[in-house]
Amino acid sequence: MLSILKIGGKVLEQPALREQVLRDWTRNSMQRLLVHGGGKTASDISQKLGIKAPMIQGRRITSPDMLKVALMVYGGLMNRQLVATLQALGASAFGMTGADLDVIRAIKRPVKDIDYGLAGDIVSVQTDSLKLLIENGHCPVLAPLTHDGKGQLLNTNADTIASAVASALADTLPVQLTYVFEQPGVMADIDNPDSLVSVLAEADYDQLKEGGAIHSGMIPKLDNAFRALQAGVKEVQICRYDAVAGLGSTEFVGTKLML
Amino acid sequence: MLSILKIGGKVLEQPALREQVLRDWTRNSMQRLLVHGGGKTASDISQKLGIKAPMIQGRRITSPDMLKVALMVYGGLMNRQLVATLQALGASAFGMTGADLDVIRAIKRPVKDIDYGLAGDIVSVQTDSLKLLIENGHCPVLAPLTHDGKGQLLNTNADTIASAVASALADTLPVQLTYVFEQPGVMADIDNPDSLVSVLAEADYDQLKEGGAIHSGMIPKLDNAFRALQAGVKEVQICRYDAVAGLGSTEFVGTKLML
Repeated sequence: MLSILKIGGKVLEQPALREQVLRDWTRNSMQRLLVHGGGKTASDISQKLGIKAPMIQGRRITSPDMLKVALMVYGGLMNRQLVATLQALGASAFGMTGADLDVIRAIKRPVKDIDYGLAGDIVSVQTDSLKLLIENGHCPVLAPLTHDGKGQLLNTNADTIASAVASALADTLPVQLTYVFEQPGVMADIDNPDSLVSVLAEADYDQLKEGGAIHSGMIPKLDNAFRALQAGVKEVQICRYDAVAGLGSTEFVGTKLML
Repeated sequence: MLSILKIGGKVLEQPALREQVLRDWTRNSMQRLLVHGGGKTASDISQKLGIKAPMIQGRRITSPDMLKVALMVYGGLMNRQLVATLQALGASAFGMTGADLDVIRAIKRPVKDIDYGLAGDIVSVQTDSLKLLIENGHCPVLAPLTHDGKGQLLNTNADTIASAVASALADTLPVQLTYVFEQPGVMADIDNPDSLVSVLAEADYDQLKEGGAIHSGMIPKLDNAFRALQAGVKEVQICRYDAVAGLGSTEFVGTKLML
């Protein structure tokens, strides 16, 4: 089974937590692929550099300067550090953006109401090189960046990359996709820590959305997760960083998605 | 023949020049590996971030903050852009630091007179994965960064990386190593543009050094270049960016080194 792990936020920003999650993840003998997001470091760096993060109607826009920050922080600082940590843990990691080995092509998001700037919508995932490397025991580490094949790098959401890459690889490999975040999983009531939904069927998801229990940032995350399940990914789940140790065992705590 | 190209300085910083050099380089059907240096962007970024570049006795020290800048600028911004440009030119490039696939291990430079901080001296180059990728038509793009295998990334001179990687690969592949810089090659008299030394034998090198015609930054560069030749690299040469188009042909203008 290929374990695809998506990490972001706090797990990325706190070195001790990050190392613990990677240690737990690399303990067993699965095949592995890591996808990481951005986090606050990019905002901090852009602020210090005097680069304004443009927003239109509450949405972030990727200006050319913000793309440079993304290349520096996601493609450089974070991706390289994750690789070095994984190497120290004995995993043969290598860091990539979608441009490396041409694995993820995207197009600049078409302008409807908003011009998102240098944000990329994925058009294709080339799995041949990825598969070859994974089957030879290597662990790709994907930064949230893609390219258009014409020399332009593009900013692309890490949850979407994880879902698209898992879906593409699921054609020929059994894949388990895990989104790691700061909650124990999907909560039926965000104010009640005992309300973890351990299995979430798609019909129930629609109900929880309508009732407002699932809202804002969780919606695109779960949409991405269900899309992967529909595309043939064997297991899709959402959990907190401290549940990574239990991945693939009966002791796993989190939310498993079901169609 | 595997062509290893080392670029840095102006070639890296000027997008049009950079693209021209890569276009010239990728025109023929050689196997390829690119090594790139840093350049002024790192100083600009560190200044804007309010990070002081520490110097001791005129030597640059890699503080933890300066390593972060190196990861961002060399490992992120530059490396990722070079890969995207090469992909657009039809080369199946992938960017790496020495940590990726564990290709270059280094140790923190031992302290004698000066503690250079997080600067790494290369201890080993693993050629297996590099060779496999090169022989499958891919083009590694190496940033001037290595790792110690224990999770620590280290700043390492790009000329030295080019020499060490060329030497290691020369054990099993015919390798041509080319250092690209801003002069037409080694000049017998730096003030006379007609004084290009087209073939430099090691004995003559020693003489030019003693006479002061070759000095400062050129000495470590040529030391690295001769070291590669001694290690079995078939051809080692130094040329200006506009000579890359003539690589491997009789029209090549530059300095070829000889033992």
